[in-house]
Amino acid sequence: MGRTHANGFRKASNFFNLPMQPVLKAACGRDEKKLKDYCEKWGWESHETDWRKLVERKDIDVIDICTPNDSHAEIAIAAARAGKMVMCEKPLAMNGPQGEEMVREIEKAGVPNMVWYNYRRVPAVTYAKQLIDEGRLGRIFHYRAKFLQDWTISADLPQGGAGLWRLDAAAAGSGVTGDLLAHCIDTALWLNGNIESVSAMTETFIKERVHTGTGQKQEVKIDDACAFLARFNNGSLATFKSTRYARGHKALYTLEINGEKASIFWDLHDLHRLQYFDHRDEGPLRGWRSIHVTDGDHPYMGNWWVPGLQIGYEHTFVHQVADFITAAAEGRSASPTFRDALETQYVCDAVLASAASGAWTQVKHA
Amino acid sequence: MGRTHANGFRKASNFFNLPMQPVLKAACGRDEKKLKDYCEKWGWESHETDWRKLVERKDIDVIDICTPNDSHAEIAIAAARAGKMVMCEKPLAMNGPQGEEMVREIEKAGVPNMVWYNYRRVPAVTYAKQLIDEGRLGRIFHYRAKFLQDWTISADLPQGGAGLWRLDAAAAGSGVTGDLLAHCIDTALWLNGNIESVSAMTETFIKERVHTGTGQKQEVKIDDACAFLARFNNGSLATFKSTRYARGHKALYTLEINGEKASIFWDLHDLHRLQYFDHRDEGPLRGWRSIHVTDGDHPYMGNWWVPGLQIGYEHTFVHQVADFITAAAEGRSASPTFRDALETQYVCDAVLASAASGAWTQVKHA
Amino acid sequence: MGRTHANGFRKASNFFNLPMQPVLKAACGRDEKKLKDYCEKWGWESHETDWRKLVERKDIDVIDICTPNDSHAEIAIAAARAGKMVMCEKPLAMNGPQGEEMVREIEKAGVPNMVWYNYRRVPAVTYAKQLIDEGRLGRIFHYRAKFLQDWTISADLPQGGAGLWRLDAAAAGSGVTGDLLAHCIDTALWLNGNIESVSAMTETFIKERVHTGTGQKQEVKIDDACAFLARFNNGSLATFKSTRYARGHKALYTLEINGEKASIFWDLHDLHRLQYFDHRDEGPLRGWRSIHVTDGDHPYMGNWWVPGLQIGYEHTFVHQVADFITAAAEGRSASPTFRDALETQYVCDAVLASAASGAWTQVKHA
Amino acid sequence: MGRTHANGFRKASNFFNLPMQPVLKAACGRDEKKLKDYCEKWGWESHETDWRKLVERKDIDVIDICTPNDSHAEIAIAAARAGKMVMCEKPLAMNGPQGEEMVREIEKAGVPNMVWYNYRRVPAVTYAKQLIDEGRLGRIFHYRAKFLQDWTISADLPQGGAGLWRLDAAAAGSGVTGDLLAHCIDTALWLNGNIESVSAMTETFIKERVHTGTGQKQEVKIDDACAFLARFNNGSLATFKSTRYARGHKALYTLEINGEKASIFWDLHDLHRLQYFDHRDEGPLRGWRSIHVTDGDHPYMGNWWVPGLQIGYEHTFVHQVADFITAAAEGRSASPTFRDALETQYVCDAVLASAASGAWTQVKHA
Repeated sequence: MGRTHANGFRKASNFFNLPMQPVLKAACGRDEKKLKDYCEKWGWESHETDWRKLVERKDIDVIDICTPNDSHAEIAIAAARAGKMVMCEKPLAMNGPQGEEMVREIEKAGVPNMVWYNYRRVPAVTYAKQLIDEGRLGRIFHYRAKFLQDWTISADLPQGGAGLWRLDAAAAGSGVTGDLLAHCIDTALWLNGNIESVSAMTETFIKERVHTGTGQKQEVKIDDACAFLARFNNGSLATFKSTRYARGHKALYTLEINGEKASIFWDLHDLHRLQYFDHRDEGPLRGWRSIHVTDGDHPYMGNWWVPGLQIGYEHTFVHQVADFITAAAEGRSASPTFRDALETQYVCDAVLASAASGAWTQVKHA
Repeated sequence: MGRTHANGFRKASNFFNLPMQPVLKAACGRDEKKLKDYCEKWGWESHETDWRKLVERKDIDVIDICTPNDSHAEIAIAAARAGKMVMCEKPLAMNGPQGEEMVREIEKAGVPNMVWYNYRRVPAVTYAKQLIDEGRLGRIFHYRAKFLQDWTISADLPQGGAGLWRLDAAAAGSGVTGDLLAHCIDTALWLNGNIESVSAMTETFIKERVHTGTGQKQEVKIDDACAFLARFNNGSLATFKSTRYARGHKALYTLEINGEKASIFWDLHDLHRLQYFDHRDEGPLRGWRSIHVTDGDHPYMGNWWVPGLQIGYEHTFVHQVADFITAAAEGRSASPTFRDALETQYVCDAVLASAASGAWTQVKHA
Repeated sequence: MGRTHANGFRKASNFFNLPMQPVLKAACGRDEKKLKDYCEKWGWESHETDWRKLVERKDIDVIDICTPNDSHAEIAIAAARAGKMVMCEKPLAMNGPQGEEMVREIEKAGVPNMVWYNYRRVPAVTYAKQLIDEGRLGRIFHYRAKFLQDWTISADLPQGGAGLWRLDAAAAGSGVTGDLLAHCIDTALWLNGNIESVSAMTETFIKERVHTGTGQKQEVKIDDACAFLARFNNGSLATFKSTRYARGHKALYTLEINGEKASIFWDLHDLHRLQYFDHRDEGPLRGWRSIHVTDGDHPYMGNWWVPGLQIGYEHTFVHQVADFITAAAEGRSASPTFRDALETQYVCDAVLASAASGAWTQVKHA
Repeated sequence: MGRTHANGFRKASNFFNLPMQPVLKAACGRDEKKLKDYCEKWGWESHETDWRKLVERKDIDVIDICTPNDSHAEIAIAAARAGKMVMCEKPLAMNGPQGEEMVREIEKAGVPNMVWYNYRRVPAVTYAKQLIDEGRLGRIFHYRAKFLQDWTISADLPQGGAGLWRLDAAAAGSGVTGDLLAHCIDTALWLNGNIESVSAMTETFIKERVHTGTGQKQEVKIDDACAFLARFNNGSLATFKSTRYARGHKALYTLEINGEKASIFWDLHDLHRLQYFDHRDEGPLRGWRSIHVTDGDHPYMGNWWVPGLQIGYEHTFVHQVADFITAAAEGRSASPTFRDALETQYVCDAVLASAASGAWTQVKHA
């Protein structure tokens, strides 16, 4: 993720008019050789191998956390206490209580903050939010989301270590729930409001994998797959599904919302398109519209290329940097804030609790 | 449904080589004027307004039931006792216990029988079954199905009466569960084996509707929407969803199966296509194949037109007639039999029970 | 084609309210054994092995011609002279002059007539015609059509004989031009008016094939592929393409019309869908609509199933029978008439002439 | 285009391991105020308002030309004579003879050169080239390409001036032929070899537009639309089409190649997907594969994100910079070279000549 963030910082001012310019002051990592290469490639002015030093430096205004999940809290809290603005990779925390502490500290410090749920800023998704806010969908009946991958099907894949810490419950907290469903939940809360209760199931298909640290076979403790039913506060019914065992799907995050008047569908594999159905269209001419979200009047797209020319994944980070800097210049946070992300954390906690208990579970609210 | 069945009986011998020819001996209905018109249009030789007379007639070999759900049991049992072969519209019964009685009687009578879960015989679905039976998917991880409609969103739509008995719990037994999910479940059991347990939720979005019989507003007792999580006997995880409140979808029945080696997706709105992903394809050339299931070596399609020319909805009934007659000529039933359909009934019962109790519920087996 | 026609005659009165009922009086063919099987399967009351006898029979009102192209003229003219109504398979004739004679005779006889360019009556195509007639597209700039197949790529395929007469220039007149492009041209003339001039190229990729009659290798004289540029009378520019060497396409007939205000796209491989783009839609919400042409208010569809359930290829023939009988009951022809089909013939002639000469060629008009 | 180039230069070294690092030494433009803003936004070290000064500077190694078409030749030739490496926007020249002079000078100077036909480096297109070079398609029968836009339909749009010089024949040389078809031709020559002859038609739908320079209505001299038939050297037949009057299409560049064994389709509106059909697949399982060209083993994609995450339009320029620098470090040019681009120029010339004469026209070769 270091590359996506650095790229975001570098490109934001090329394509957006920002009130302040981000400066790549210092990068931090534990492997100094790799770190130096990274700094050179991306133009970081300096580096540290101990994040605490970074937090102490006077010339640093923003701490951007993109470490594994188990270290978010410690770094974020230290940064907040040092008065730094904080950007934090998702999910916010290992669980709700830890997230609560982070929110408490960041709000006490009063520093601008944001969590990198980047998919809110895919132009098609941002545009969906706008259409919903304009009341075009009417009363919402259904929300459906899924995030499907297939990269862990092989039993030979080890757990733990660089690139594979997501399979290690100690570092990741959970499997697909915190990694993939957290994205689906963040978008859903943004588009459709709070979730009241959930009924979930999880499964670990491969029970043991070699750990890259020990070289030994160890029990796999993460959830390989998770699905849950949900009831939203607005009365709509929802299903959420995620797995790393859906052969044929690399990163298929889709969402669909069915309202009384209109429906919306979006798919990360073709992220520049929004499917839209409007019942107010003339009867026999009704159909799902495939909107190529690349026009100058689509969110963010006036800053990129001419109509018809698509942007990609990394641009969501550029947008997030631009929005954060714009907000931070006025002392504000950008969405989703730590508090927004805590609400997602509570849903994840309820999902995992429901999967463990087999019972419908109420969601705590941030 | 009378038209789809009559059309099936008439066309089967045009397009398939059958060991016996179906004869449209007599049609039965309560409105004699409409019935006569129907008989003339479709070439039925005679008619009855009391189904009991039909069951008594010596010149009738097969009773085909396409009445509302609450009369299936009585007619089917009488027909079986009279030694008639029986074809019955889905769902088999109002509930499991009633279905058990029907199975007991039909099996005691030893007559060929079949239930009209017609989607098994969409060529693309039949072909999916064949691919699974050949072991091409490997271990199954996930099954997902949904059946989405949008025709009951208007609060002005009444319940009960011709064409609207599906909204009346007294006639229909349930809402989308028995009407739509039953289709999804039938196909799923056929393709993926038995379901062990479910966690479900249902909702009735419009609480009261005018009843066409009484002209009064009455409580709506059917489920407008239903979604459930399921665990199959083979260890796979599943979600099933159905609603009549998904704006933009007329009859969107989709199913997807993810196996270790390959995945399959199908969609009723483009029923002549099967999407197929095979991990054994050469790495960089892997992709979902859109198979136009219209070749001579695809199931049933050698009996229709040249490659590329699609068939439609009603052909599934023609296929079902052809298969039933072929089996019946040898004294066998065709799938799904009453017993097969009872298994679907048990899943529906468990779904409705789980939705009522909020607890995971075990599925009884036929 | 015998099956598609017989099916059309049988089903039309099941699904449409017709002023007269078609009766399958007599079928004609040269192989008496096959003919008897066909008659039995489809319920023809009698048969003849000499078409002249059929034309002489008093109990025959309509002659339906579905022989190879080289016999259309003789049969049609004899039938017209005998005062029979005539339905004729496409293309009308071997060439324009022959078609002129047919038109002269049929119009002299004053009998209702029609040519089986069935694709006009795919509901999505009929609906496109309606949208154009309503002026929704505005000034037309472009028309594009193609008809792609891949069934003759193998050099081992013979020419001539049953099922393969389409590869034999003596029986077929031309290759893809008369077989496939004729369909594209018929629809184009109907939707977009007359064509003024064309520039064409043709190619025969496999130069020699064994003839099933002689068993010898003979020169292939048909066009395997043909493409042409065209200028319509309304000022729009067009391209037409057809081939039997487009690997991966079974019967991909597509058409697209670009107007000032709206555009339309249709594809035979998913014939129940119409793609529609309307510039009058709100700016950022503009997109191609995928219209599932299966609603009761779509052309012909009120006579079939509930919304969302698709029909297929053979239904176009049912529609054509229904329209022909409705018109014939009033003494009228149904479109496309022999005269309409002559216009298509003239375009085909101009295309083949241009391909031979290498020059832009004016189209004669019917 | 200045932004796409600058972005390409800045990002290439972030994502690719380059033997030399591009330095943004100086930008040149006529409007000094805009130029300064641009330089600041993108980090150009200095600027010039006279391109001749740039060519004289000792600290400049590469001249990158992104001016209107009528100035390419003069700048490129001056740069080559000054011993600079040259990158030039497409089309290379105003016509073939001018292009010949450019090639002569650049080859005499022996400097690395390249023309910005960027679509060769969309990963899906590069991958298509690789598949063709591996012989997977077999003998080629057909090539089809089109580039459709709809941005000039309004008669109120003026010609000439910033952003609209493409409508002014004096600056652009031609309309869609040089602007859009040139892209299609460049890719086609790369994928399918040389074109032997063409038959073309062009049209100017709006005959007069206000010129932004004079404020007067003036004749429009560019081609609004162009279509042509072509025969390739390898015996395949082709059609090419382009227009700015195809309502509903923003930048729909599509190409399809049909070979004996396999076919390929690609579409700029979903540039990260390649459609592939392979006849060697098992019969009933054949279908067009939708390949999401985002895996590490797809061209260029190992340098970007994890599988499933798409890149966009601007990345083609990054790839082109990376390839140019890699080649230039060894004294080589990158494709397409000036000479390659001259071949495209000759095809454009033949197309315009054929449209004017109405005759098939032979293509000169570079």
